[in-house]
Amino acid sequence: MSLELFERHREKLDQACEASHSRGYWSGYKEMPSPRVYGETAQDDGIKAFQSHLGKTFEIDQPTSGGTLGVEEGPFGVELNVQYPAPDVEAMMAAAKAAMPAWRKIGRQGRAGVCMEILERLNAKSFELAFSVMHTTGQAFMMAFQAGGAHAQDRGLEAVAYGYEEQMRHPKTAAWVKAQGKNDPLEMTKKYTAVGRGVSLMVGCATFPTWNGYPGLFASLITGNAVIVKPHPRAVLPLAITVRVVREVLVEAGLDPNLVCLAVDTLEAPITKEFATHADTKIVDFTGSSEFGNWLEDNCKQAQVYTEKAGVNAIIIDDFDDVKGISRNLSFTFSLYSGQMCTTPQNVFIPRDGIDVNGENMSFDDVAKAIATGVEKFLSVPERAVEVLGSIQNKGILDRIEEAKKLGDVVLDTTQIDHPMFKGIQCHTPVIVKIDGADIEKYSEELFGPIVFVIATDSTQDSIEKMKTTICENGAITLGLYSKNEEMIEAVEEAALEAGVNLSINLTGGVFVNQSAAFSDFHATGANPAANAALTDGNFVSGRFRVMQSRR
Amino acid sequence: MSLELFERHREKLDQACEASHSRGYWSGYKEMPSPRVYGETAQDDGIKAFQSHLGKTFEIDQPTSGGTLGVEEGPFGVELNVQYPAPDVEAMMAAAKAAMPAWRKIGRQGRAGVCMEILERLNAKSFELAFSVMHTTGQAFMMAFQAGGAHAQDRGLEAVAYGYEEQMRHPKTAAWVKAQGKNDPLEMTKKYTAVGRGVSLMVGCATFPTWNGYPGLFASLITGNAVIVKPHPRAVLPLAITVRVVREVLVEAGLDPNLVCLAVDTLEAPITKEFATHADTKIVDFTGSSEFGNWLEDNCKQAQVYTEKAGVNAIIIDDFDDVKGISRNLSFTFSLYSGQMCTTPQNVFIPRDGIDVNGENMSFDDVAKAIATGVEKFLSVPERAVEVLGSIQNKGILDRIEEAKKLGDVVLDTTQIDHPMFKGIQCHTPVIVKIDGADIEKYSEELFGPIVFVIATDSTQDSIEKMKTTICENGAITLGLYSKNEEMIEAVEEAALEAGVNLSINLTGGVFVNQSAAFSDFHATGANPAANAALTDGNFVSGRFRVMQSRR
Repeated sequence: MSLELFERHREKLDQACEASHSRGYWSGYKEMPSPRVYGETAQDDGIKAFQSHLGKTFEIDQPTSGGTLGVEEGPFGVELNVQYPAPDVEAMMAAAKAAMPAWRKIGRQGRAGVCMEILERLNAKSFELAFSVMHTTGQAFMMAFQAGGAHAQDRGLEAVAYGYEEQMRHPKTAAWVKAQGKNDPLEMTKKYTAVGRGVSLMVGCATFPTWNGYPGLFASLITGNAVIVKPHPRAVLPLAITVRVVREVLVEAGLDPNLVCLAVDTLEAPITKEFATHADTKIVDFTGSSEFGNWLEDNCKQAQVYTEKAGVNAIIIDDFDDVKGISRNLSFTFSLYSGQMCTTPQNVFIPRDGIDVNGENMSFDDVAKAIATGVEKFLSVPERAVEVLGSIQNKGILDRIEEAKKLGDVVLDTTQIDHPMFKGIQCHTPVIVKIDGADIEKYSEELFGPIVFVIATDSTQDSIEKMKTTICENGAITLGLYSKNEEMIEAVEEAALEAGVNLSINLTGGVFVNQSAAFSDFHATGANPAANAALTDGNFVSGRFRVMQSRR
Repeated sequence: MSLELFERHREKLDQACEASHSRGYWSGYKEMPSPRVYGETAQDDGIKAFQSHLGKTFEIDQPTSGGTLGVEEGPFGVELNVQYPAPDVEAMMAAAKAAMPAWRKIGRQGRAGVCMEILERLNAKSFELAFSVMHTTGQAFMMAFQAGGAHAQDRGLEAVAYGYEEQMRHPKTAAWVKAQGKNDPLEMTKKYTAVGRGVSLMVGCATFPTWNGYPGLFASLITGNAVIVKPHPRAVLPLAITVRVVREVLVEAGLDPNLVCLAVDTLEAPITKEFATHADTKIVDFTGSSEFGNWLEDNCKQAQVYTEKAGVNAIIIDDFDDVKGISRNLSFTFSLYSGQMCTTPQNVFIPRDGIDVNGENMSFDDVAKAIATGVEKFLSVPERAVEVLGSIQNKGILDRIEEAKKLGDVVLDTTQIDHPMFKGIQCHTPVIVKIDGADIEKYSEELFGPIVFVIATDSTQDSIEKMKTTICENGAITLGLYSKNEEMIEAVEEAALEAGVNLSINLTGGVFVNQSAAFSDFHATGANPAANAALTDGNFVSGRFRVMQSRR
């Protein structure tokens, strides 16, 4: 059965492997929520499927302590009231572990077939998942559909491709024949088996439960591990639907569904530490705060831990002629999902003496104003603005905006926009605050949310130094540069290599520094404190299994 | 220059990559110390080169505190009295780090060329290295030549091949073009750069300084890192010669020789911890005691740590017809280098009721006796015996033999053989001690040296359980099985996968459980406490560099 699935999906898997090598544009799933792609009734079916979960207990037949729990609040005001079975940690760990030998035995191609089928089924549920992502994270619909659906599925497929290829580097068997001069040669038959490390824990985040979760989930599955999916208490539903799909496919393939279990907890009684430090947990994937990510790295000695944490993403603005292009591009960048992305820039470094624009000096304040005006104009039509901004994920972010305003001169204040569709919901535009480059303590840590600092530096060279200092200390996932000087571009490229951060240069069109495309862009590098791994490369998959050898 | 080297060695590198995939027999360097291969004068030249080091200060122009030190004792009685410059830790770390950007800039092919040239030069010095290995470790000449020379070079080449291929998985540049319906497509040019993690520390061991050291050294070099080579104080010379060769090639290629430095210390004033916990040390490779290996894993938070530690290798003897074959094979296995290998079996599990041999029961004692007699006969001719046994590396091992004898009935006592060539040197044959399987605390930890326990179990099934318990708890690198029952073979294969240990089945000929061949056998698995990594696979190299991206 699993090998039939492999044959059915082989072509797409081969394409995915090839795309991960060539790194041009490729996608396994369609990102447009179009009826022509997903079917005439897909959107309505998706809404109904989403609504069918509301106010109910989510059915999933797995080891449970008996009770139910669920604390999701709808950032758009839609009350979820979904209850999930509370996990029994020991029973769930034991059941997941017990499901592993059969998963190992179907082999790497069998596992690939099952993983590909799961992704295909998830893709078919893209609308249901999109509404679930939207009403747990606060993303606007289009973003929830793309980042939470097709793009997340692409990231999952990418992990399957890397994990599959990593296991295919060695044959299942080999004949070893060593000549011995006039004597008979020495001959051995050797067998190589990929064996998963153990139970893998995937800890989801509140803002991108699927996009940040699928890489670890699928990387662990393809390499032979069981997975406990532990969603953020505020964004459970998208991962609950995901786990149910996984389990359905496992059952159809004649496998034990407890290979993948859903472990839900609450903000008041978290269970992540219990799972993460369990002796049988051998892998942990985490996206979230630096504090907890560092705790996991320090305390899960028995496991391989992959973390994506906070960072201070930066933009360096040097001499550049197309300031309108900067403004247009950054307006969208800062506004998208109200800056609640791990890739949104926070620190914009601009020389205090201004920059050269078409041979004329443009002052610091004028550059800052151009950006502020761009953001203001871009968000001037409420109906359009809310479809970019989405909603604020939790109230802590609103408090943070107020804190940020106290740090310097407010260049652009945040405004509230009443959501035309969801009554009582207010969307929040980005705040832009001017800070002096010398006050590094004000901007050297991440203030997650729609908060932008324009920072006055002594020169672009000083901007580079301050970028390096802050990123080496507190990490970053993205760095942007605007410059017309090739020498300066080279200097920033070199500095980016030293700071261990991916660089985007002179983006003025339809590509944004906070977006990264599976198969072409590496998300994070693992080379600065913002993350200890990249999505997805060989290192993200190769530690999830070991090769055992038998020779005779 | 480095690209010229790449072209010169490209064919061999391609062959090595291919061999790592097909995993049949392949070797990059000749293992026989034959004049036809290495030249008529190679042996004499090697002796002279070795002797030229004795009683002198080893010349190497690198950051030093000014003093010299050196405590090597010749296990064969040849006094070394070599002094080495004492390192200045901070200055050495700074110099190594400063050498990295140029090493990155010559690119993956440039680094491959330089690494291949280094290996070629080391190969040309195989006799000099062999005598250095012999007179520091106590290995007999043939083993020192093979394991310390060609086989170590093969392990280094294997690491170069894996590291090179891992970096070649992604292109240097890619064009990303995303169609936008009727609008112009989005286009980006992307650049990918492999960047080493930082300074790498290679901590050598006293028994196999080159074989265990080269994988980490070359894996770190090929992936763009600087390397501090910290030999075991008792086995410095082979690595000192190695580092000098590396530095010569670097200088010839126009690179900074401080990319690789030699850091010598003494048993009384060790410096490993200082280097290992230095903020700029990002990789540590270690072979040695579990105690120190675990310390490194726990305390080098800033680094990726690869360890090979102690383990309790095992043999399971089930029903088998060719007991002479068992005896012949294990005699060599137990005797080679007086059991001072991380792959030598310690625990031989045999059912207390005996085994079936050609339809007749052979008692536990008779099986044990057959093995003991085999060892005795094999070592009965002193001239031949000493060429297998070599010398005891340090006095602690002799004390351990005496301890082991107190644990049970001595089936075969150790004997001392006067070395015919080296006056006053005594070689020691293996001791075989009978222990009851129930006394697991007696055999569950490693007693490094020529010590074998024959352990009486309730059945082969019980042997499997006790093997699993001891290996899951204390690790192992090798497991051997003798059985004529296919079902039992399958059961042990399954148990080996669970214990995370590589298995050798029914070895009665010229292949031995304690030998592992580069490009075909994985040395250790990383899946039990004996090691957290395997030599060499994708996981051994992929964490040593990160890919940084620049797009515009």
